[in-house]
Parts: sequence; C-alpha cells; structure tokens
Amino acid sequence: MVALREMIDKAIENYLYEKEPETLYRAVKHLPSAGGKRLRPIIACLACEAVGGNVMDALPFGVALEIIHTFTLVHDDIMDRDEERRGKPSVHALFGDATAILAGDALFAKAFEIASYTRDDHVAKTILRNLAIMSKEICEGQQMDIAYAESDSIDEQQFMEVITKKTAKMFEHAAAGGALIGGGSEEQQEALREYGRNLGIAFQIWDDCLDVIGEDIGKPVGSDIREGKKTLLYLHAYTHADDREWLKCYGNPEASDEDIRKVIHLFEKVGSVAYAKEKAQGMAAAAKERLAAVPDGEAKDILMEMADFAVKREK
Amino acid sequence: MVALREMIDKAIENYLYEKEPETLYRAVKHLPSAGGKRLRPIIACLACEAVGGNVMDALPFGVALEIIHTFTLVHDDIMDRDEERRGKPSVHALFGDATAILAGDALFAKAFEIASYTRDDHVAKTILRNLAIMSKEICEGQQMDIAYAESDSIDEQQFMEVITKKTAKMFEHAAAGGALIGGGSEEQQEALREYGRNLGIAFQIWDDCLDVIGEDIGKPVGSDIREGKKTLLYLHAYTHADDREWLKCYGNPEASDEDIRKVIHLFEKVGSVAYAKEKAQGMAAAAKERLAAVPDGEAKDILMEMADFAVKREK
Repeated sequence: MVALREMIDKAIENYLYEKEPETLYRAVKHLPSAGGKRLRPIIACLACEAVGGNVMDALPFGVALEIIHTFTLVHDDIMDRDEERRGKPSVHALFGDATAILAGDALFAKAFEIASYTRDDHVAKTILRNLAIMSKEICEGQQMDIAYAESDSIDEQQFMEVITKKTAKMFEHAAAGGALIGGGSEEQQEALREYGRNLGIAFQIWDDCLDVIGEDIGKPVGSDIREGKKTLLYLHAYTHADDREWLKCYGNPEASDEDIRKVIHLFEKVGSVAYAKEKAQGMAAAAKERLAAVPDGEAKDILMEMADFAVKREK
Repeated sequence: MVALREMIDKAIENYLYEKEPETLYRAVKHLPSAGGKRLRPIIACLACEAVGGNVMDALPFGVALEIIHTFTLVHDDIMDRDEERRGKPSVHALFGDATAILAGDALFAKAFEIASYTRDDHVAKTILRNLAIMSKEICEGQQMDIAYAESDSIDEQQFMEVITKKTAKMFEHAAAGGALIGGGSEEQQEALREYGRNLGIAFQIWDDCLDVIGEDIGKPVGSDIREGKKTLLYLHAYTHADDREWLKCYGNPEASDEDIRKVIHLFEKVGSVAYAKEKAQGMAAAAKERLAAVPDGEAKDILMEMADFAVKREK
C-alpha cells in the first residue's frame, strides 16, 4: 500500500512535467504536490490487480482520476470562496481567480491526456468517455449543491444524488475502470462499480461526521455548520429536532465556538450523528459484500481494509 | 457549405441533450445555441472529405472542437470581465461566476464525451489525446496573454506564440484531425496541419484588423484599443511611431471615440494596418499552398475559399 502510494505520487509528478508559463504550472502543481490520500488511483490500481490485471496498466487512468479530483477542488474553492485547502492557501487565494480558473482547466486537460496513455485502444476510448461523463456529473452535482445551499432543507434522495454525483461516482469509476483495464469479467466490473459507489457514499457521509466528531482535517471542526452545508446530520436534525434555535447558527459564518458546540450537542442528542454513522457503516459493509465477486488475494484484502478505513478514520 | 453548417448546428444541438440541473444546462447551451461561424467543425469535416473520407465520420470530432472553443470563451469572459459575447450577455453576466465556471467545465467534459464517439478506436484515442494537449496549450496561451497584458510591449515572437496557442492550434488540429479521421496519408495530415495553422493565424490577425477597420462584429470598433490588447497593429505601432501620445489612450477603458479615432489614424499613418493586413494575407496564401497535397474536389475548393474568406471578411 505504501509502495503503491509512492508509485502514484511519483507518476503524478512525472505526468505533470510542464514548466512554462511558470505561474500557470506553479498553480497547476500546487494541490497535486500538496499530497492527499490518493484514494482514487489506489482503488483503480487495486481493482485492476484484484481481477488479475497488472497494477501498472491502471496507473494512467488512476492518475487521471486524481487530477480530475484536484481540478474540481481548485474550481470549487473559487466558487465557494474557500481560502484554504489541505491546510494551505487555496489556488485562487495564492494566484488569483483568473489563473486558478486556468489551472483547473489545464489540470482537466492533463487528466484526459494522461488517461489516453492507457495501452489498449478500445479500453482507452471507453475509459476516456466514462471520465468525460463522470466529470459532467460532478459539475451537475456541484450545481445542485449550490442551488440547495440556498434552500432551507432538502430530502434525503436529493442529498444522496448530490453526494453520488460529486463524490461517489469517482470512486465508482475508479473501481469499475480499474476492473475493465485489468480484464475483469462484466460481473466483476459491475461488482467493483457497486463497491466503489458504496465506498464513496460511506466516505462522504463519514467526512461530514468528522466535521462534528473528528480531529482537524485541514479545516476546523464545525466548518460545515458555519458554511451551512446540507449534510446528512443536518437533514436528520432538521426533521427530528423540535427546538429550531440551532438553525440560526447553521450557515452563520460568524457563529461562535459556543454556538457550534450547541449545534453539535443537538446533533448528538436527537441521534443525527448516530444516524449518519450507521448509514456510513452500512454503506461500507455493502461495499465489502460486493467484493465476493473477485478472487481472494492481497488486492482484495486492501480493498476490504479501505472500506473499513472509510468509516473508522479520524481525519 | 450551408448544408454542412446546418448539419453541424443540428449535431451540436443533439449532442447537448442534457436538461437537468436546468440552470446549468441553460448556461451550457447559451453560447453554442447563439450561433457562430462553426469554422472549426467545418474545417474538420472538409479536411476529412478532402482526403477521401466521409464527412460524417469527422462530425463528433468537429463538434468537440466547437464545444472546446465555446468552453474557452465562457471562461475567458469571466477572466476578462467581458459582459458581452456575440452581441448577447456573456454566460457569467447572466448566470453568475459560479455557474459560468461550471458551465465551462461541463462543456469541456462534453467535448471529450462527444469526441469519443469517433468510430475507430485507435483514431479516437489519438484524437482525444490531441484535443487534451491542444486544450492545455490554449490555457497556456491565455495565461501568457494575461501576463503580457500587464507589460508595455511584447515582441512579435511572443505575439505569435500567444495567437498560435490560443487560436491557430485549434484550426491546426481541426484540419489535421479531420485528415486523420478521413484516412489521409501522413503527408496529407501534415499539409492540412500547416493549412490549419496558417489559416488560424491569418484569421486571428485579420480579426485584430477588423477591430480597427471593420464593421460591428458584436463588439464596437476600437474595443481592443480600449482593452489594451497586444495586437500586431499595436506591436508595429509601438516600434514605428515616434509620437508616444497615443499610448495614453491604449488600454484606457474611458478613452473617448475621438481618442480611438486618433489611435486608428496613427495605426494607418505609420503603416501598422497595412503591415498586419499583409501578414494575414501572406498566411492565408501559405495556407492555400499547402492544399496542393490533397486531390482537387469540392472540399478542397471550399477550404481554398475559407482561406480567402479569412482575410476578406468584414465581420
């Protein structure tokens, strides 16, 4: 796992070889070189290996996913006016909006170039098309997220649609694409697709829980509350809490630490935290079940562990 | 030509079939449905036919080029704070920056999806990679353009690099890609690549001339002067005019119509307009020469006419 991650880090560095214009490429490399868990390429490579393929064959595709992920972060930070990312200034905070828009675009372009280095022509074409459709869906998810931010509440189906498009689809494509590259059967590709989707949903819901229960993940605890993010915890509390006082703090950037503590306390009291945790854990369990379709081995073991990690991690 | 353009318009409409989220897709379709010359897809289709291919085979690729072109306009307008495009409000002026960024991203994603419908797997992979590299170069050109906007003057080599990356590369890829899809020989692909590059440069320089000599092209005459755009006319006048008074108006958004007329008069007096026109006409002639590599026929005739049109058009 460590070796795989190092290989991915190295591949990202190698693929992003451009240097000029200097400002543009400093902006392009700012986030990819800041690290990150590299979950998407790891899943792509492991899914490839799990069905009997060579891990190296999935590397261009995996790196492309990571770069697309990065591109969405760069543009989302502009839209959300987030000045920090992974404990560092965001790209637009450092380079201005124009260069940040361009850096995102250049990352997006690079991702398609990189994915095109997938060896088999037919597989490459399929994967490029899937990456394009996935990227479009991420945009749709972000647009829905922006629209929902302005409404008081959304239902769970709307919530699931947003996190599926914004997050889970990438995990889904990572696993299914890895399986396709590795020569997995259609049944295996489908099973890994569902593994990825469930894992992605589990991962995102747990991420929202961490904002309430977790350690510092590069943003202070309670930031979702101050931003008014429509998390599963919010949705649950919105329909289960009789007291409406907390809604005044939710989405208030000026909310005090004391206010935040009160909202968190309410989330715990009405069972919203437990509800979200259970949902995430259920999704992780469902992801693991789907791995029955692939043969036992190290790759499968790590994919199992990743599902556990998704809902146990503290950052 | 009219039939081809109608076919392209129809294909663009069909490929952009998405409807939800409604705001996003209204923003996505705002520019593509506003018309335009469709030069890039027309060149792609004609180049394909000129080497003996079927025009329909180049349609996904041609539409992808048009959509990439549109995506760059949407994002450039945000960066340049241009509120109008093709005589209509720009996307960000209508929908806000966040949705405009997303609409550009979604168009970019769509372009790769559409290009992936190119039939032959190997050709599709090559074309997708080339589109990705081209898109990256467009970003580089735009970044250079932003940087140069702040410097007093640039040399002609820097100028050529910017317009090559921002504009000519797309024409180059349109022609070379069309020839590849049509099964043209390597020599033909290369000749059409050079046709496209020369045509693109001619087209861009003429576009800059039109701002000084031309009719309304959806933006008022003199807008490049008020914006301080580093055109070939500016570069020439900068090194050939003894009087420096005009530089005070150049890049001054508040310049009066009288000021603009004075700058235009100076451009004519020192020979900058004639210089740029000749350069554009020379490039158009060079483009036409390269067509010797393809057999005579209707497609070649129209490609010839397009080179003439590039430096004769009045809008």
